[in-house]
Amino acid sequence: MSTIARNDAAESDPRVKAVFDDIRTTRKSDFINNMWHYLTFDPGLLESTWAEVKAVMATPSALDPLVKEMLYIAVSVTNGCTYCAHSHTAAAKAKGMSAEQHADLLRVISLAAKTNQLATALQLPVDAVFDADHRP
Amino acid sequence: MSTIARNDAAESDPRVKAVFDDIRTTRKSDFINNMWHYLTFDPGLLESTWAEVKAVMATPSALDPLVKEMLYIAVSVTNGCTYCAHSHTAAAKAKGMSAEQHADLLRVISLAAKTNQLATALQLPVDAVFDADHRP
Amino acid sequence: MSTIARNDAAESDPRVKAVFDDIRTTRKSDFINNMWHYLTFDPGLLESTWAEVKAVMATPSALDPLVKEMLYIAVSVTNGCTYCAHSHTAAAKAKGMSAEQHADLLRVISLAAKTNQLATALQLPVDAVFDADHRP
Amino acid sequence: MSTIARNDAAESDPRVKAVFDDIRTTRKSDFINNMWHYLTFDPGLLESTWAEVKAVMATPSALDPLVKEMLYIAVSVTNGCTYCAHSHTAAAKAKGMSAEQHADLLRVISLAAKTNQLATALQLPVDAVFDADHRP
Amino acid sequence: MSTIARNDAAESDPRVKAVFDDIRTTRKSDFINNMWHYLTFDPGLLESTWAEVKAVMATPSALDPLVKEMLYIAVSVTNGCTYCAHSHTAAAKAKGMSAEQHADLLRVISLAAKTNQLATALQLPVDAVFDADHRP
Amino acid sequence: MSTIARNDAAESDPRVKAVFDDIRTTRKSDFINNMWHYLTFDPGLLESTWAEVKAVMATPSALDPLVKEMLYIAVSVTNGCTYCAHSHTAAAKAKGMSAEQHADLLRVISLAAKTNQLATALQLPVDAVFDADHRP
Repeated sequence: MSTIARNDAAESDPRVKAVFDDIRTTRKSDFINNMWHYLTFDPGLLESTWAEVKAVMATPSALDPLVKEMLYIAVSVTNGCTYCAHSHTAAAKAKGMSAEQHADLLRVISLAAKTNQLATALQLPVDAVFDADHRP
Repeated sequence: MSTIARNDAAESDPRVKAVFDDIRTTRKSDFINNMWHYLTFDPGLLESTWAEVKAVMATPSALDPLVKEMLYIAVSVTNGCTYCAHSHTAAAKAKGMSAEQHADLLRVISLAAKTNQLATALQLPVDAVFDADHRP
Repeated sequence: MSTIARNDAAESDPRVKAVFDDIRTTRKSDFINNMWHYLTFDPGLLESTWAEVKAVMATPSALDPLVKEMLYIAVSVTNGCTYCAHSHTAAAKAKGMSAEQHADLLRVISLAAKTNQLATALQLPVDAVFDADHRP
Repeated sequence: MSTIARNDAAESDPRVKAVFDDIRTTRKSDFINNMWHYLTFDPGLLESTWAEVKAVMATPSALDPLVKEMLYIAVSVTNGCTYCAHSHTAAAKAKGMSAEQHADLLRVISLAAKTNQLATALQLPVDAVFDADHRP
Repeated sequence: MSTIARNDAAESDPRVKAVFDDIRTTRKSDFINNMWHYLTFDPGLLESTWAEVKAVMATPSALDPLVKEMLYIAVSVTNGCTYCAHSHTAAAKAKGMSAEQHADLLRVISLAAKTNQLATALQLPVDAVFDADHRP
Repeated sequence: MSTIARNDAAESDPRVKAVFDDIRTTRKSDFINNMWHYLTFDPGLLESTWAEVKAVMATPSALDPLVKEMLYIAVSVTNGCTYCAHSHTAAAKAKGMSAEQHADLLRVISLAAKTNQLATALQLPVDAVFDADHRP
């Protein structure tokens, strides 16, 4: 079920084909997941979304690729995004996330959600030492 | 402002003192941040919360301590927890997070929030290959 | 799957029938979607919910009906509400939302989610000029 | 800081005065908290909001008034609503919430947030016995 | 669909068997729901999660067991957790939640979500009387 | 209070200056709000964020500029983003949002939050007619 119909003929549009080809090349795989199939309804949105995902997630940067996938999972789970929890857990496993790391990830993100509730329920004043504007 | 009054005399309770001493020893610092001061209103809740934070965040595990702090930030920011965003960003910096890593963290968690919206708005069907129950 | 059983005989209750009749008249359609079928388990809750939805969404007001549907989508997607994302996207299309407007809506709500993360992660101080209590 | 300016002269409007009088009578107190002061910018919104709060929270119903305040806290904390966490914790205390009950409330809502993360991260299939539509 | 494969042979691990046996004894039922089946992928995570759920939810405390289930529902619904909404609504019904109480619960948590939006949209200043740190 | 220190000398960096100049030109105002001041800690992040905000919010598109600001408010409020609620409400007023439109916006987004809770609490099955993949 989706809110926009999937268009299996979308790749006949050269703008869509260019993005799909770049996804295949970047990922070294012929598989195109649903995120990209459904975004074809607006080629401009497809292009800009893929460009940003490629720049942030598929380009070497200050953080390790697996760490970036785990951060993606952390946000996606907290937002309750079903599709994203699935796709990024699969991606993290493909990048080598072990069962031990997965369990550790779950321990951290579930503890964070727990202490977030406590801090918000108590409406804790922020300690002055945490203020970057006033740190010596 | 808080929903429970801070009790600066709380450490006269031996259960509170034991937790505070363990926090100081574990962190090699005399500073006790507000989370723990305010939880003293219920020593049992203080004990169980610290025990879990210590076990998950201050004990060697499958993930690097800095990675765990960054995951904590990712969840805290997504949940909009002011206190937690402050305290865990300070903790990540104390554990060596560079400005480049911080910027990269922001890029990943803000992109994740963005694509979460797209996936949820489109109500994307989960690709069959993402289903762990049916993966070969 | 639902947490309350659907009761297909609910319309035999005159209070339910009165609401269903008003939904059909207001929408000029015989179709009653699941929201209303499942709320029949408590006729008072059904009545008050429909009364508010009718007053806000089906009554001329300062905002255009399509704009109101798009605002509804924005909130529903941000809250991760599957049913609501589906029902209000269908409603927006029925009220004339074009593919271009839909893509634009997705661009705005996904960008908003992205910059929300940045602002919360940075814990930005609110600029004084934004304070309505102190604006000249 | 607020997004709408507070209007201290609002009670000169008879519609506002009628709502404020009813709040004072219902609560047996002269104090009007900021929620109602700021909603005076639109008397219709003030009226409908107060009418619903009064009907749900200040009218005897199937749940105890203190339980209803604690449920309000649970939702408000999960949504990260600063104002609501403050106002409903104060209301719960005024209705007799003890420190032990408060601590228990925090234990439950923080555990719930924790297991919500686990269930969403694992994308647990819902057990068939939980489906109300198919329960015998 | 899940992000971790279900392992029906997990109970051959004595640590898993010990937890499952304790769940059966505590709940006086042979049924083990999916949350516990899927957590078996990491026996330590299974043990610590069950220990906390048992301590908070299945041990007499300052709040009534049904009230605790309803608080759990309030958080789970606000977080959009499908599995948790199902499992805790079933648990609340098993603990005696009537249709009238269920409707009342829905009225409170939906009203809370509504006024949370208003308070956040208006960015209401917290009334000084709500500040526990400065209450006389 | 912020998690990154504000750098008032940032404009001496030509990349920062170029962005600030473009903000001033685009908005026909000398004022630079805090979002941009704090993002200067990473010029690349500043550039990409501004480029996207300009493309989506300051470029004519299928939706009216005021509608886009109101959608931004809807997401920001639902996410509990203090800074964003302030900045985008100010922007919407600058673009002509009347008090009547503001009240209507609040009515819609608070009602949406309310019915989101009901739909999630009931775990409503999505009506088949809402599925874009199967619509005739």
